[in-house]
Amino acid sequence: MDIFEAMETCRAMRYLRPDPVPDELIDKLLWAATRAPSPGNSQGWEFVVVRDRDVMSQIGELVGGRMTASMGGLVDTLPPSQARLLRGALHLANTLPQVPALFVVCSRRVYPPQDPQEVFVWSCVYPAAQNLILAARALGLGSTFATWQTVAETELREILGIPEDVFIGATIPVGYPERDFGPVARRPVAEVVHHDHW
Amino acid sequence: MDIFEAMETCRAMRYLRPDPVPDELIDKLLWAATRAPSPGNSQGWEFVVVRDRDVMSQIGELVGGRMTASMGGLVDTLPPSQARLLRGALHLANTLPQVPALFVVCSRRVYPPQDPQEVFVWSCVYPAAQNLILAARALGLGSTFATWQTVAETELREILGIPEDVFIGATIPVGYPERDFGPVARRPVAEVVHHDHW
Repeated sequence: MDIFEAMETCRAMRYLRPDPVPDELIDKLLWAATRAPSPGNSQGWEFVVVRDRDVMSQIGELVGGRMTASMGGLVDTLPPSQARLLRGALHLANTLPQVPALFVVCSRRVYPPQDPQEVFVWSCVYPAAQNLILAARALGLGSTFATWQTVAETELREILGIPEDVFIGATIPVGYPERDFGPVARRPVAEVVHHDHW
Repeated sequence: MDIFEAMETCRAMRYLRPDPVPDELIDKLLWAATRAPSPGNSQGWEFVVVRDRDVMSQIGELVGGRMTASMGGLVDTLPPSQARLLRGALHLANTLPQVPALFVVCSRRVYPPQDPQEVFVWSCVYPAAQNLILAARALGLGSTFATWQTVAETELREILGIPEDVFIGATIPVGYPERDFGPVARRPVAEVVHHDHW
């Protein structure tokens, strides 16, 4: 797929079908993620790919329960676009036991070698995650950039055995989409650009 | 360009020709960057696009001087691949006055609305930056993910007038490349993947 078409139509997909994702597509997503740049090419990233039904159910119950408790009541108070987004996020978390795959994108603090800095963790993990979701779009797979570690980090680490010194950057559910891809909604570029000086 | 070809051949380009980059390509890079996802579609990103020769010279002298002083002596002590990378990084910073454009990718802390968190700044700014460098590759432009704010943040903010509450995520020089695009060098995927559990 053309790269600009993939970027333009890479809608967050929060309604995913339970059909399994073939191994070769899972591998292709990981290959794409690891083509990203990283500071000094340090490649501190690591990925947990979850497809085991029991593990998915545990994570779904944890995250779905936590999100529903803290945010479920907000749906009716938000403007339509935000309400739609939140409804989708709750749906996704609560249907996780049926979602075929979850990618947990992590990185260690490894760069610079003598003085590893946290900002370099984020500049490693998120470009890789972005490659992953673009690749999913190109392969006809739905995904979305979730950050479920922010609602249940301790428990998520425990379920997945993620070491303490590893940073979790994103949790990306992947499956064939129930809805159509289409252009993303964004503010006009002119509103966010400064030329030569802020 | 096919998205997987762009990802595979998106080498960091640290040797850039001085030829100007047409306005429509600058615009296309910004369009691509702003197709990225952001937490709750909050789009907290902002970009400074520098092309003014005086400003580029100021930044080049600042960053080039700072990097040469702190890292120039290391070149001969490093293994070949790291020495090559550092030599390229120093070359790029020191030739910045001749580089046609520099994108400074920033984000404010805007999400969640009631309790904005720093991790959401990074998960906004770096996917946008990754889209930008992939788009550059697809357009035949060289770029690299630099983080010059880590060596001279105070001065860089002053030169560009970047407000205190704005986070700088990446500084991305862009121009036509002096060298060839080609496959990136990465560790085997199997070394960085865990299935179902770390």
